[in-house]
Amino acid sequence: MEFPFEDFTLRDWQTAEDPGTVRVAMIGIGWWTREQAIPAVRESAFVDTTVLVSGSMGKAREATGLAPTIEHAITYEEFHNGEASEAYDAIYVCTPNALHLPFVETAVRLGKDVLCEKPMEATVDRASEIVDLTADSDVDVMIAYRMQTEPAVRRAREVVAAGLIGDPVQVHANMSQPLLEMIPDPDQWRLDPDLSGGATVMDLGLYPINTARFVLDKDPVAVQARTTHDRAEFEDVGDEHAVFTLLFPDGVSAACTASQGAYKSSHFRVTGTEGEVVIEPAFYNSQDRGFRISVGGERYDVDFPQVDQMTEEFDYFAHCLLTGTEPYPDAEHGFVDMLTMEAVYDADRRDQTVEIQSR
Amino acid sequence: MEFPFEDFTLRDWQTAEDPGTVRVAMIGIGWWTREQAIPAVRESAFVDTTVLVSGSMGKAREATGLAPTIEHAITYEEFHNGEASEAYDAIYVCTPNALHLPFVETAVRLGKDVLCEKPMEATVDRASEIVDLTADSDVDVMIAYRMQTEPAVRRAREVVAAGLIGDPVQVHANMSQPLLEMIPDPDQWRLDPDLSGGATVMDLGLYPINTARFVLDKDPVAVQARTTHDRAEFEDVGDEHAVFTLLFPDGVSAACTASQGAYKSSHFRVTGTEGEVVIEPAFYNSQDRGFRISVGGERYDVDFPQVDQMTEEFDYFAHCLLTGTEPYPDAEHGFVDMLTMEAVYDADRRDQTVEIQSR
Repeated sequence: MEFPFEDFTLRDWQTAEDPGTVRVAMIGIGWWTREQAIPAVRESAFVDTTVLVSGSMGKAREATGLAPTIEHAITYEEFHNGEASEAYDAIYVCTPNALHLPFVETAVRLGKDVLCEKPMEATVDRASEIVDLTADSDVDVMIAYRMQTEPAVRRAREVVAAGLIGDPVQVHANMSQPLLEMIPDPDQWRLDPDLSGGATVMDLGLYPINTARFVLDKDPVAVQARTTHDRAEFEDVGDEHAVFTLLFPDGVSAACTASQGAYKSSHFRVTGTEGEVVIEPAFYNSQDRGFRISVGGERYDVDFPQVDQMTEEFDYFAHCLLTGTEPYPDAEHGFVDMLTMEAVYDADRRDQTVEIQSR
Repeated sequence: MEFPFEDFTLRDWQTAEDPGTVRVAMIGIGWWTREQAIPAVRESAFVDTTVLVSGSMGKAREATGLAPTIEHAITYEEFHNGEASEAYDAIYVCTPNALHLPFVETAVRLGKDVLCEKPMEATVDRASEIVDLTADSDVDVMIAYRMQTEPAVRRAREVVAAGLIGDPVQVHANMSQPLLEMIPDPDQWRLDPDLSGGATVMDLGLYPINTARFVLDKDPVAVQARTTHDRAEFEDVGDEHAVFTLLFPDGVSAACTASQGAYKSSHFRVTGTEGEVVIEPAFYNSQDRGFRISVGGERYDVDFPQVDQMTEEFDYFAHCLLTGTEPYPDAEHGFVDMLTMEAVYDADRRDQTVEIQSR
């Protein structure tokens, strides 16, 4: 059996060869922005980093050497006052979750498009405000689910949509990492429930959730869940480890785990009536993704060139803006994850199966 | 890093080189007995099949050619009357689940040891009777969890016990197969709730359950679950597909799936604080098992000689009897699975987290 994967990493979304350049202001200059986003944009065909926006002027100034295109380093306050707004077309929001909303508000006011990190915000209410803001505005807001432009995930979605593994029946997915070894700071914002809304479900659990939604092309209707913690640093936020089941229409289920206190690992698997597709490793930009399909008793391992997930995401976002295409996932899509994660925490508290609210 | 796996398939339980031979009566001559058990015993060092016991004399007689050691073919009724009892030392019970109890009763009465297929029985009450019978008797009853003598599973247990992957945090496990393609009979006993007690949790789901218990060396305390069915053949029994979460003490969890209506697949994974051990394929005798460990960012794939799981199990059982060692897993151990599966069905019905009763 042949799978049509000669062009595994082809950007199936790309219609224009040279659509131009989008100038981006990076909001929040933490390690992800410095070590992942800015380097990815340097490799990007359609994006330049031109402005850095930080709560600390020192942090912003220090980072200006990370790309030759950077023209301005300003504070959050200066950003909200519209400073340097002539120097960027769009913003990338990578602050703690609970600070996303005001930056989206200012961007909408200034007429700047938005690539907003996931989760959209720290609470459903604040995320809902982002959805309302976008609905009433001409700016484009994309939620930064880099899995949706990851070639392995897009090919898995095609495999499922084409019926190559029959009807999907069950999903397994995990994303885990040792957070306190990576960032040995007990005061980091992910451990502050007011800033993050949750440590593990919100930061890692949404990869299984959103990837399952994207690959199955279905939204879950109910969840079962349990969160726990071992380390004292997770006492305020509660969820160091999370195990949850997503229940989709038609009896499809996803058995998911996430942990900020375990070995770095990730996988995503869909078992169907006629076969199986597995991505492993799945979710980390820093680990080469693996892809395999099993059908008819045979297993096919697909070797493919790895891409930088952040470059793919920025290029996709910019390509949409430059070609007048609505970028996806939009705020409405991201909001379903917020509702799902709220249901996960609720199911955990109540020890019950909880239905996911619709908007 | 070196793993001490030169003797991966070494029978770490074997103390005697040539302990003798146990003569076994096979009870229930369905496809598993004919195609798996009897051939496995032919390869076994310490077991001979000497008697076949079937509900149908024709079925028993037809199978006598499967091994040269077979001396008698008798009916269930004849067995209960003690016929041919001088020709066997122990019985292997491989009938529909709801028929296990009377054979164990007769074996106890006749002073014959028992290897009883899992699940022990179709209901907790009947399984409880088996536990009571064994407690009051000198015969040994072992529940036939072939995973506990599968070398890959035993090595995984050692890896966990030695702390090589740190503290276990999360387990993923699945076992699925297309039952109606394998046995295209809508009247088969697995689909009759009175005979099976359940189609998928009872027949396949107990592999994830029991293997998690064995490898973690812990018993679950609560479960969350959902079962569903697509095909009309599963309407009476209910569970064509099952997804369930086992909650262990200390916050360890196992995200499990099982399906009688999906692609044949199985895996078992433990993610710990310092690493991960994965068995894939895991549970089918007919598929070569795979074994790998990841620690310190490195992945080690262990290639090892495959064994016949049924031969291992029969030899282990016989070796215990011949050396005066109590075989394990015993009825008490198997009963915890019965309680766990009852809790799974209960959690499904009630849409709640359900605590597992203790005896």
